[in-house]
Amino acid sequence: MSTPYLEQLLTVLRFPSISTDPGHAGDVQANAEWLAAKLTEIGLGTKIYPTAGHPIVVARNAARPGRPTVLLYGHYDVQPVDPLEQWVSPPFEPRIKGGRIFARGSTDNKGQHMAHLCGITEMLSRHGDLPVNLIFLLEGEEEIGSPNLEPFLKQYQSELACDIVAISDTGMVGPGIPTFTYGLRGIACVEVTVHGPVIDLHSGIFGGSVANPNTMLARLVASVHDNEGRILIDGLYDAVRPLLDWERAAWAQLPDGAASTLELTGVPKLFGEPGFTDYERRWARPTAEVNGIGGGYQGKGSKTVIPQSAFAKFSFRLVPDQDPQDILAKVQAHFVKHCPDTVRLDVHMG
Amino acid sequence: MSTPYLEQLLTVLRFPSISTDPGHAGDVQANAEWLAAKLTEIGLGTKIYPTAGHPIVVARNAARPGRPTVLLYGHYDVQPVDPLEQWVSPPFEPRIKGGRIFARGSTDNKGQHMAHLCGITEMLSRHGDLPVNLIFLLEGEEEIGSPNLEPFLKQYQSELACDIVAISDTGMVGPGIPTFTYGLRGIACVEVTVHGPVIDLHSGIFGGSVANPNTMLARLVASVHDNEGRILIDGLYDAVRPLLDWERAAWAQLPDGAASTLELTGVPKLFGEPGFTDYERRWARPTAEVNGIGGGYQGKGSKTVIPQSAFAKFSFRLVPDQDPQDILAKVQAHFVKHCPDTVRLDVHMG
Repeated sequence: MSTPYLEQLLTVLRFPSISTDPGHAGDVQANAEWLAAKLTEIGLGTKIYPTAGHPIVVARNAARPGRPTVLLYGHYDVQPVDPLEQWVSPPFEPRIKGGRIFARGSTDNKGQHMAHLCGITEMLSRHGDLPVNLIFLLEGEEEIGSPNLEPFLKQYQSELACDIVAISDTGMVGPGIPTFTYGLRGIACVEVTVHGPVIDLHSGIFGGSVANPNTMLARLVASVHDNEGRILIDGLYDAVRPLLDWERAAWAQLPDGAASTLELTGVPKLFGEPGFTDYERRWARPTAEVNGIGGGYQGKGSKTVIPQSAFAKFSFRLVPDQDPQDILAKVQAHFVKHCPDTVRLDVHMG
Repeated sequence: MSTPYLEQLLTVLRFPSISTDPGHAGDVQANAEWLAAKLTEIGLGTKIYPTAGHPIVVARNAARPGRPTVLLYGHYDVQPVDPLEQWVSPPFEPRIKGGRIFARGSTDNKGQHMAHLCGITEMLSRHGDLPVNLIFLLEGEEEIGSPNLEPFLKQYQSELACDIVAISDTGMVGPGIPTFTYGLRGIACVEVTVHGPVIDLHSGIFGGSVANPNTMLARLVASVHDNEGRILIDGLYDAVRPLLDWERAAWAQLPDGAASTLELTGVPKLFGEPGFTDYERRWARPTAEVNGIGGGYQGKGSKTVIPQSAFAKFSFRLVPDQDPQDILAKVQAHFVKHCPDTVRLDVHMG
């Protein structure tokens, strides 16, 4: 990367643009203003749109008929930095080590949209225009769920009309492997709570005679997969669109995904749906994961309690043609069917 | 209860003798001194023994040869009162409602040893002596595991020699049913942790390809019982001494335990080992309970994490002839046998 572009990236990485923290609202705003100034400087028509939260920056070249209109999406806000003590170097003081830049937001998402900015700058400086009608949209609330993006898109629907939206809030398969992401799995979430006794019971006095919500919850969790990793919820795979031959062939040419997953995660052995490669399992197959489980006493040592209740938080990754509402209904039916009648079940969607 | 005895009990209940809280050490001491003064007043030789923690009060009549020596045990310390807002009346301001006294410690254990005190007082005032050689021992650390009782017993072993120890830190089957407890179940504790990836993973990026510790833990928990509540750990029932006919017959004459457990716990249906009554399950059969379970994100909403690890805290209630070390070894063997090789297992005893 040439020095001026590198300096631009480092400058952007120094903004502590943490969208969830009201104390950083000024930094988020300053980041937006820096971007707008730069986009103006390279010759794009640029505007900062205030929202109920953080601003949205939109830059565009002069639209010419007959060219496709491309909307490039990026976000300039970042996640909080806690726990700070686990950072090897300060999160907003970028460090370059071994050809890599270490800073909060460097890969999510400042690095990517600043790469777009470099490309646009080069193209404009060499050719005076781009081969497309460009709408470059940078928001500041992605890390908090983009609450103001949808109303913004609705309000400016006609101005933002385009032929294609390109998002690079994604990753690369590996260093030196340019990666084109053409889809992401969707998600549906469910929280399951098993209610037992009306108060926590002493396991010495009542143990053996009432169902323990922790145990009953564990059975429900265990009922979701078979021993090899297939999901056992009736109908869950019904709508799943099969992978196409060209997709499987293309992915088979990539470096060994299983080896890289083993190395990155440090697990003793991989686990997942038989008949699919690591990439296929991670990119193209639905999954059921328990993101959280809890019940009873979790402190040090032991406390002889049979808890009132226990819960598990599930998220289901969905693939093309799976409908979240349909999946959630099937998930609920599964838990209702498998929950013992010695406890009460509560299934909370979302 | 006659008014003077009632007043004595209410006085004792007003001491906030919370043994775990250093801020209440003076109250614990004051309670011990009140008891010692009362025991002296009714004619017993009484001494307060300081310990490394709270004092032990020992009172005795003059020993006469040819009589059995009975050691009566009680404890005058109480549990903390948090959460205070759930108390209907202040815990150390006893209230009498519907013939019952409501105060911290009223049933654990001040009510019981004050009943003993009434009986001894009456007997001494009427007959001038007791039919036995009495050693009345009241400790102040039961609620924190009696750390100084064992050294005390060892130090004064010969002075405390006796034919029988009577403990009434127990309960009654029901109002108006005098209850004789001749045994309590023992306990053995184990914490099981399942370790997966070296860091928490994003379930959208890695889900489907690595074993989720929450799921694997749930399988281990579910493997401990069959669907009807029998424990599936190999050999766990081997040493269990069968209930004797007279015991089963005696318990069968008690009011319906199942009905009372249903009412007290509010569970939709009882659950437990087939072939045994509610009392038998709760009083005379070994059990395996998960007192705590935890892994991953437990806060509000969802967080798409595959956690590094998940744990479950088990306690096993043991019955005569079961050896805790033997049981723990069998439990460990069970978990080692059932743990999938896609995660690492850690079994911590105690």
